[in-house]
Amino acid sequence: MLFPMERILDGLRVLEVSAFVAAPLGGATLAAMGAEVTRVDPLEGGVDLGRWPLHRGRSLYWQGLNRGKRSVTLDLRSARGRALVTRLAVEMGTVLTNLPPRDPLSYPRLRERRPDLIMVSIGGRADGRPAVDYTVNAGLGFPWITGPEGHDRPVNHVLPAWDVATGYLATAGLLAAERRRILTGRGGLVRLSLEEVALVVAGHLGLLDEARLIEEPRGRFGNHLYGTFGRDFRTGDGRYVIVLALTPRQWHSLAQATGLPFDHIRADLTDEGERWRHRHEICELLEPWIGGRTLAEVATAFEVHGVLWGPYRTFKEVVAEIDREPAVALDFGGERPPAEPGPRPGEHTEEVLRELGEDVEELRAAGVIA
Amino acid sequence: MLFPMERILDGLRVLEVSAFVAAPLGGATLAAMGAEVTRVDPLEGGVDLGRWPLHRGRSLYWQGLNRGKRSVTLDLRSARGRALVTRLAVEMGTVLTNLPPRDPLSYPRLRERRPDLIMVSIGGRADGRPAVDYTVNAGLGFPWITGPEGHDRPVNHVLPAWDVATGYLATAGLLAAERRRILTGRGGLVRLSLEEVALVVAGHLGLLDEARLIEEPRGRFGNHLYGTFGRDFRTGDGRYVIVLALTPRQWHSLAQATGLPFDHIRADLTDEGERWRHRHEICELLEPWIGGRTLAEVATAFEVHGVLWGPYRTFKEVVAEIDREPAVALDFGGERPPAEPGPRPGEHTEEVLRELGEDVEELRAAGVIA
Repeated sequence: MLFPMERILDGLRVLEVSAFVAAPLGGATLAAMGAEVTRVDPLEGGVDLGRWPLHRGRSLYWQGLNRGKRSVTLDLRSARGRALVTRLAVEMGTVLTNLPPRDPLSYPRLRERRPDLIMVSIGGRADGRPAVDYTVNAGLGFPWITGPEGHDRPVNHVLPAWDVATGYLATAGLLAAERRRILTGRGGLVRLSLEEVALVVAGHLGLLDEARLIEEPRGRFGNHLYGTFGRDFRTGDGRYVIVLALTPRQWHSLAQATGLPFDHIRADLTDEGERWRHRHEICELLEPWIGGRTLAEVATAFEVHGVLWGPYRTFKEVVAEIDREPAVALDFGGERPPAEPGPRPGEHTEEVLRELGEDVEELRAAGVIA
Repeated sequence: MLFPMERILDGLRVLEVSAFVAAPLGGATLAAMGAEVTRVDPLEGGVDLGRWPLHRGRSLYWQGLNRGKRSVTLDLRSARGRALVTRLAVEMGTVLTNLPPRDPLSYPRLRERRPDLIMVSIGGRADGRPAVDYTVNAGLGFPWITGPEGHDRPVNHVLPAWDVATGYLATAGLLAAERRRILTGRGGLVRLSLEEVALVVAGHLGLLDEARLIEEPRGRFGNHLYGTFGRDFRTGDGRYVIVLALTPRQWHSLAQATGLPFDHIRADLTDEGERWRHRHEICELLEPWIGGRTLAEVATAFEVHGVLWGPYRTFKEVVAEIDREPAVALDFGGERPPAEPGPRPGEHTEEVLRELGEDVEELRAAGVIA
């Protein structure tokens, strides 16, 4: 933070009252862009405080999702604790939450206190019923088309992709509402649900129309990339690479790099539908070529010809190779703050309450803060 | 669009020059919030025009990712076509692209023409080298921890999760830059890459710190949700459900709904680490309980007790059950436009060029437009 005045969301203040992934990711993203984000949790720390992965009793998950925020812990069961959340919401003017929209997070009541307040409220299902990333993903169809061909059970994703998409979309929704507030003075309630995010994304990708219009259900094709050419291959030294050809140019690159007799396959392989239909023949030619070379040899040949490819890595290999982990993937020019560990839970309770003009010692004596 | 004046991004005009998923998804999201988004493609339609899934020769993918946009097609190889892109960029004031940052999309040159221009530029790798969702995912580690336990190859995701995350984060980045422009009059270049989005998300989830700090590499645990309790189960009538218990309350709900003797497992199962360590014993009790009941019976018992669960569905089942597909998952109050098919490629070429005051007939005669 060498140039704090340069940070793009300078002046935006956000109260985050959240659990799980989506809302915390949104808050961390806003914080990394320069917003002042204050997260409030219950005194005992909330449901995520011990969430795995753990290291020496510390949740790496909690640390990772709360980077750049101020942490306040309050007795949220007490009327005084809840009243403090209301005060913080009114003071900050913007609230990001995925908790149920009732006191102290009732938008109509907060709006009475601050008419231009913005609240972004993330839910599980569109109708308000609870859901998490994993139930949403199960309900959408991806587990039946992911995983090895012939596998007869659903395959869950490990990446909570809908949480991630929802967290980033919530960030966009908050900034859209902030734009209207700047231009017109009006606040508002912004709602979104994991379920609708997943549905809308599946719609954008053509998967819903495909299910409506095409009789044959989408199959499970293992690591083949549907409708074009892409798959994993094993190198001679036991490593794995992914190789793709999504465009005619990429197909030419692959043909040139390998020199393989793809023209023996009687099809116009510059057409991706043809590459898909002939994927097994293409793979039969590619497998021995890649399997007969080391990763380094494959890399050299592919890089020279601009093939679209990449090695598979484990997380251990990733951290051994990266030299830089930014706080946010957006680069606005200027200094980019690195990712730093999140706060200790409650680390900023006193600081934040003093800003509100509260008597910290009295609140501690009353058990509202620790 | 009953109340177009009510749409939250009213007045924002965006030129999109893009391919693949991330930038088009960002553009479609902005359009669904009321921005005027104009997508420019080459005369011949670009690399995505025939991308699968197809229905009667029409790309459902292209249609889905371009909803709500105006479509312009130009001969981008000609100097005049490129000059028109420059004019459009200057006129709109905001550019969203994932094409290489060279003429006509060179930010420094566009800034000379319009100092407050905002350009959001999406790349593959952080260093500018090409990458797509699938190579990024291969390089990050998820394919080794996704899929059936004991499987010995990487498992690719089918959902291009990094494209989706990047598209939504680009939307947020564009709106952050727009906020600064409204407040200060300054434009700017915003850059992001699929690779860094993936890395930052893995960092937020604690996966990078886990790989750094914990000796044992993260394993592949099939459909078990790591570090807590969650898995798929087969019902007596051959359906599949996911059942989770991420919090003590959810664990109590599951125990109550099933009445199973979980207390015979000698552990404090309100602790999620203990649920994880004893997951196989929990599953051994749950399997016959769920397997001995129909989906309807399981649903009734789980709903009564507030269990966190959900059925697995195929895409065919999803579209049979949904009654509404909104254009964007964000609800700002008021009318929510439904998802509508994207434009025909080039549908708005004349309309947009006339707005610029161009001689459409002359451009057609010169082959710059079709």
